Amino acid sequence: MRAPDQAPPHDLPAIAADLLARLRARHPRVHCVTNAVAQHFTANVLLAIGATPSMTMSPAEVEHFVRGSGALLVNLGTLDDERRRSMTLAADAAMAAGIPWVLDPVKVDRSAFRADFARTLLTKAPRALRLNGGEFAALADAPAERDAIRDFAQKKSLTVAMTAEADIVSDGNAVVEIRNGHPLMTQVTAMGCAESAVLAACLAVEADPLLAASAALLAYNVAGEVAAERARGPGSFGVEILDALYNLDAAALRQRAKVS
Amino acid sequence: MRAPDQAPPHDLPAIAADLLARLRARHPRVHCVTNAVAQHFTANVLLAIGATPSMTMSPAEVEHFVRGSGALLVNLGTLDDERRRSMTLAADAAMAAGIPWVLDPVKVDRSAFRADFARTLLTKAPRALRLNGGEFAALADAPAERDAIRDFAQKKSLTVAMTAEADIVSDGNAVVEIRNGHPLMTQVTAMGCAESAVLAACLAVEADPLLAASAALLAYNVAGEVAAERARGPGSFGVEILDALYNLDAAALRQRAKVS
Amino acid sequence: MRAPDQAPPHDLPAIAADLLARLRARHPRVHCVTNAVAQHFTANVLLAIGATPSMTMSPAEVEHFVRGSGALLVNLGTLDDERRRSMTLAADAAMAAGIPWVLDPVKVDRSAFRADFARTLLTKAPRALRLNGGEFAALADAPAERDAIRDFAQKKSLTVAMTAEADIVSDGNAVVEIRNGHPLMTQVTAMGCAESAVLAACLAVEADPLLAASAALLAYNVAGEVAAERARGPGSFGVEILDALYNLDAAALRQRAKVS
Repeated sequence: MRAPDQAPPHDLPAIAADLLARLRARHPRVHCVTNAVAQHFTANVLLAIGATPSMTMSPAEVEHFVRGSGALLVNLGTLDDERRRSMTLAADAAMAAGIPWVLDPVKVDRSAFRADFARTLLTKAPRALRLNGGEFAALADAPAERDAIRDFAQKKSLTVAMTAEADIVSDGNAVVEIRNGHPLMTQVTAMGCAESAVLAACLAVEADPLLAASAALLAYNVAGEVAAERARGPGSFGVEILDALYNLDAAALRQRAKVS
Repeated sequence: MRAPDQAPPHDLPAIAADLLARLRARHPRVHCVTNAVAQHFTANVLLAIGATPSMTMSPAEVEHFVRGSGALLVNLGTLDDERRRSMTLAADAAMAAGIPWVLDPVKVDRSAFRADFARTLLTKAPRALRLNGGEFAALADAPAERDAIRDFAQKKSLTVAMTAEADIVSDGNAVVEIRNGHPLMTQVTAMGCAESAVLAACLAVEADPLLAASAALLAYNVAGEVAAERARGPGSFGVEILDALYNLDAAALRQRAKVS
Repeated sequence: MRAPDQAPPHDLPAIAADLLARLRARHPRVHCVTNAVAQHFTANVLLAIGATPSMTMSPAEVEHFVRGSGALLVNLGTLDDERRRSMTLAADAAMAAGIPWVLDPVKVDRSAFRADFARTLLTKAPRALRLNGGEFAALADAPAERDAIRDFAQKKSLTVAMTAEADIVSDGNAVVEIRNGHPLMTQVTAMGCAESAVLAACLAVEADPLLAASAALLAYNVAGEVAAERARGPGSFGVEILDALYNLDAAALRQRAKVS
């Protein structure tokens, strides 16, 4: 584990390249209880970075699948009744087994019902929280800014990865800012959901959640920049980002990284 | 609102270009209670035309999501129990709030169970009905021809958009015929489902349902023609149509439109 | 029907080309009760080979949809409660009506719950079983090798299609080995699930399950090789394989087939 100071990791591109190498060597299984719209794209993103997706959400077997996994993602989109039961079972199983898990509290800013459910899940010790600015503001009752994000991370003993034009990652001590990515990433559905899955995959191969989260966001957004250069619109972009993640290397990460 | 005569809109390509401009400026949210196969592609089509998709179907929150939306789509494919409850709640919420909504009665010609459910939904004042010829015949107990379509639209006080090689749109007064599109559109799943979502998006920015429906079908089918010219099969076609919708402009609409 | 000897079909490429021609002429409907991750890709694969997918899983109508279909696929991925009920209803309806059906027992090697359910489904006379080596070993309690596969097929009166680098197909008498395909096929989600759907489609147009299964696996894996030559990664591969299936012809099958 890194020392608990406020300095960001000093060579994030190299760390991200190293995490990708671990994923491609170990193929950790990431169990996802995620929304119906995002399942297919999320599975393909996980495969493209070297991880192994599993996605069952039957309450009868979700705990079993979580226990054998390297990390868990819980994503609140399309929150039907059975999925909600499975999320609780999955988070409890991960907490009990010490398996790192990521909460993606989709649209908690649009629904009090979701915000309440997300707050309950936050008591089950997620390792990281990946969300956008509006969702952070709703959940933390604070603006989506560096200090508030660090304070919330500290108070909840987790790592926050708030994604926007400039992403902010904090483990409650250090704060990392990443300014990579491309506007086409907002024109394809499930891009944020799949980014949370990449974060979960990195937690499966890296014990320090600040490094795992920062590297995940850097790799994903650099791949987005590479893909955008080849795309003619959101359709080809959705294809190109899978190819870009699959082919991503240390050189592209180093050349493109905008980290502070 | 247009005068209630039988003349079709005289410059549909310009109207369609104007509606696309409104979508790209306003990004209306379109809530979709749609089938599991179509969710991902439908969300990407909505994003490609400038709209914002939301897709939750939990009975606990679907009404809330409908109330804040610009339009609703209800699509009967993969009709499981929870989805069916959500469709009723969603349609009731849209009717109560005066939010325009589109019914896509998928495969009512294959199942009496679906036809009954569709008839119940028709009593909840959908603004438009998007379906194919077989589905129209089953629901209206009449052939899928101009006069029968206009009569059914008038009787039910809605706009019918019947899609086939030659699409027929009627609000019960005017009848518009559109002969655009490409055979590859039938080789990709969820193309019709996503077309209904485009219609819903147009209803969110245009009060006249005949104009909204006609413009939606024209834009979608012209994009299909552009995509087919770049595609080598149904895989690349499914990608190219998203790019084509994203890049669609007034010139392509004007040059290709076959409207009468 | 072929004579019950152990000789493999002597011109499988020609047989596969003939089956593709039948699919493209007849468009048989294949009903799929399959997992949420695979539904969209599976539907597109079926359309690309000329079949017509249907995917509803409501217990209220699944039997009706099975009865009118040419073949059924039951795939155990994402095994939620309603889907499980529908699988039982669908398999019973297929057995009663004599409609050929394929069981894809996804991840039975990871979950005793699934293995038990798969064993129950095996009593409902599936025409074929498509699975990987680990799944075969769990279900048959035997190694995934030629003799054990032939014995299991004979004992259960069905055709086994075990897919791996070298696929093994047996109807309990003859054994066919197919060594086509490409590593990128393992980097895209739902590739195996969709292969099972192709097998089901071939059963809808060919009464001999050994021929149907062998031709399906050959066609799918040759298309994978063609697609891999055009792809730059798993994203473009997932698009190219749909185009390759759509354009697959006798010449490509003949040139590339590695069958013994």
